[in-house]
Amino acid sequence: MKKQQRSVTAPRGFRAAGGVCGIKASGNDDLAMIVSDVPARCAAMFTTNAVVGAPVIVGRQHTRRGTMRAIVCNSGVANVATGQQGLDNAIAMCQTTAKAIGGDPYQILPASTGVIGHQLPIKKILTGITTVAKQLDTGLAADASAAQAILTTDTRPKSALRKIKLGQTTVTIGGIAKGSGMIAPNMATMLVFITTDADIATPLLRRALKDAVNADASFNRISVDSDTSTSDTIAVMANGQAGNLPIRKRDGDYEKFAAALADICRDLAYQVIADGEGLEHVIHVTVDGAATQADALRVARSVADSPLVKTAVHGCDPNWGRLAMAAGKSGAKVDPTKMTLRIGKTVVFRNGKPTRFDPKVVSKSMKSFDVPLRITLGLGEGSCIFLGCDLSREYITINADYHT
Amino acid sequence: MKKQQRSVTAPRGFRAAGGVCGIKASGNDDLAMIVSDVPARCAAMFTTNAVVGAPVIVGRQHTRRGTMRAIVCNSGVANVATGQQGLDNAIAMCQTTAKAIGGDPYQILPASTGVIGHQLPIKKILTGITTVAKQLDTGLAADASAAQAILTTDTRPKSALRKIKLGQTTVTIGGIAKGSGMIAPNMATMLVFITTDADIATPLLRRALKDAVNADASFNRISVDSDTSTSDTIAVMANGQAGNLPIRKRDGDYEKFAAALADICRDLAYQVIADGEGLEHVIHVTVDGAATQADALRVARSVADSPLVKTAVHGCDPNWGRLAMAAGKSGAKVDPTKMTLRIGKTVVFRNGKPTRFDPKVVSKSMKSFDVPLRITLGLGEGSCIFLGCDLSREYITINADYHT
Repeated sequence: MKKQQRSVTAPRGFRAAGGVCGIKASGNDDLAMIVSDVPARCAAMFTTNAVVGAPVIVGRQHTRRGTMRAIVCNSGVANVATGQQGLDNAIAMCQTTAKAIGGDPYQILPASTGVIGHQLPIKKILTGITTVAKQLDTGLAADASAAQAILTTDTRPKSALRKIKLGQTTVTIGGIAKGSGMIAPNMATMLVFITTDADIATPLLRRALKDAVNADASFNRISVDSDTSTSDTIAVMANGQAGNLPIRKRDGDYEKFAAALADICRDLAYQVIADGEGLEHVIHVTVDGAATQADALRVARSVADSPLVKTAVHGCDPNWGRLAMAAGKSGAKVDPTKMTLRIGKTVVFRNGKPTRFDPKVVSKSMKSFDVPLRITLGLGEGSCIFLGCDLSREYITINADYHT
Repeated sequence: MKKQQRSVTAPRGFRAAGGVCGIKASGNDDLAMIVSDVPARCAAMFTTNAVVGAPVIVGRQHTRRGTMRAIVCNSGVANVATGQQGLDNAIAMCQTTAKAIGGDPYQILPASTGVIGHQLPIKKILTGITTVAKQLDTGLAADASAAQAILTTDTRPKSALRKIKLGQTTVTIGGIAKGSGMIAPNMATMLVFITTDADIATPLLRRALKDAVNADASFNRISVDSDTSTSDTIAVMANGQAGNLPIRKRDGDYEKFAAALADICRDLAYQVIADGEGLEHVIHVTVDGAATQADALRVARSVADSPLVKTAVHGCDPNWGRLAMAAGKSGAKVDPTKMTLRIGKTVVFRNGKPTRFDPKVVSKSMKSFDVPLRITLGLGEGSCIFLGCDLSREYITINADYHT
């Protein structure tokens, strides 16, 4: 276990809190708030699913304006497929939060995660918002409580922290995340909330977030089960309280900030995949030598999502035939006579033919939690790192034996 | 069980045989031949995987010429990722078959299914071809033996037969197939071999085959596990021995023939999916009201391949949220406020909101082997029927606990 440290409250000028508003039958924390003392610049990205929850519809409108004061998130009910009443409820969450912290409801990002197709118990939530707002604090307990309150089927909270020097100024970035299946038993959503005290122009913040989400092994490069949630949301608030020389162009400071943001996204993405439903292994798929970047991503995703690759890894079976199959079906340009496949450090296939290797040795190396697979296509410069996980009986149990 | 009947030897002028050449450790039949007495017109389609076996490379060349005398197929070793020696072996199978039946090696279609990355035990196979050729016959035993000899992890042989009247002439179409996973434990291949005594021009035969493979619920509309084999092959031989008025244009006779061919493909495709690895249910996904035909296929495939839909069906859980998610992530135009979802005959979601239904009743209806799911998009005229299957612990066992 990593040592306990603050995350979203570590940057200057942010407070957080989590609490119980009474949605979850378990009585666990189910309401989180993250608040910037001053209006923060913001960037956000949402699910590409055509079916989206009410908080995504409202959140897209609000974050497009470029300024945000707070994030309010409940777990237990996702507010998806809830019609006009769902939209009204998402807006009510923003209004009550704004009132509680003294701000503008259009500067609030609402988020919900949990069961699809049920209306929010909105009275409980609005009462909860008022109560939780009184507990907003910068300390470790408040920070940990917010990270806890956004979870559903996750087995543990996920948080990350980075500090960088811009000139003489220390800038801090903190983040929390939830996600276990892309959809857990009738529950939805990967949520990522990031705070920073950096002073950075909104267009640059948006660019940095987009690049960070699409970086190797980051959020757009992981897949538990190839299913895309209806509520995925990632948002970053930058409130400028660090007092750094404002980042206004793509200079060295921007590069440092963007690199740290990408790093924190990779860290949280790994924590999400490592908590994948029923998993025993994280699969690290590296593709290089692809004809194009797009081809590299196609091959990596095809390998990481292949049920036969996933079950082979589950069984610690150095089954390179399935790797070749998954690369070949991806739609990318693939020439087996130029392809090299590695499992861990062992070359198992080179230029169209299997190598002589000891399957027992390779199988033993696959017993570790992290299993690296490398596909070298020999066609160009495209490369990609993508994280997946194995497919286990436990995944079937989690997702088949639960009843809605 | 269907009553035993001939399939590929039912059309006039075709003989078949199956036998043991000694590849399979089990000692089961592992070599099949199907021979037309006279050169037959032919059409064939192969896997879209960029990584293909040597028999696919050779088979593409041979079938492109438009005339075929015989199909020779071994099971146990797939002859994939075997380099130049693999190509030489596939050609040797054609040469020995041609010699045994008195024909042209370029008029032979070779096929192999089984383990990837091993060379064929070519001596055993060539000896087997000579032996099996002597047993070629038109009877039920020979027919059944050929259907048996092409299997790998299949639990049962798959065959189908159709007769149609063209004018006063009866035309017969017969077919056999194998396939269980798109790739079984390090084995590959769905194989389909169809014979007919129809007299039909090659371009029309090709068109009819392509349409049949892409018909609703036919071979391009089924998926056991979304993984595409390196050796998929479907071939049809039409030897004209029925004596029908030759089909030379797209007239009524052509339509009748094409419909029967599509029907036999659907029949065999259902037998393949119904023998899917570890399955307990066949999922019939019907999409209608899509903006385009392509969108209908996208949605149907996305639903049929979604691990969360597959596990929900496995658990007999009327989890419409996962259907909505899978439709939404497909990339097709989807508007939840116009979408209707049915499980069996029950409407569970209409125009953006769940309906009131009794989950226990719907769950009970999902205990049947065939589970119908219907997604009505309300956007246009596009429609599609696609077959999938549930995802079970048994699938994991078959594919993870086997070691290469």
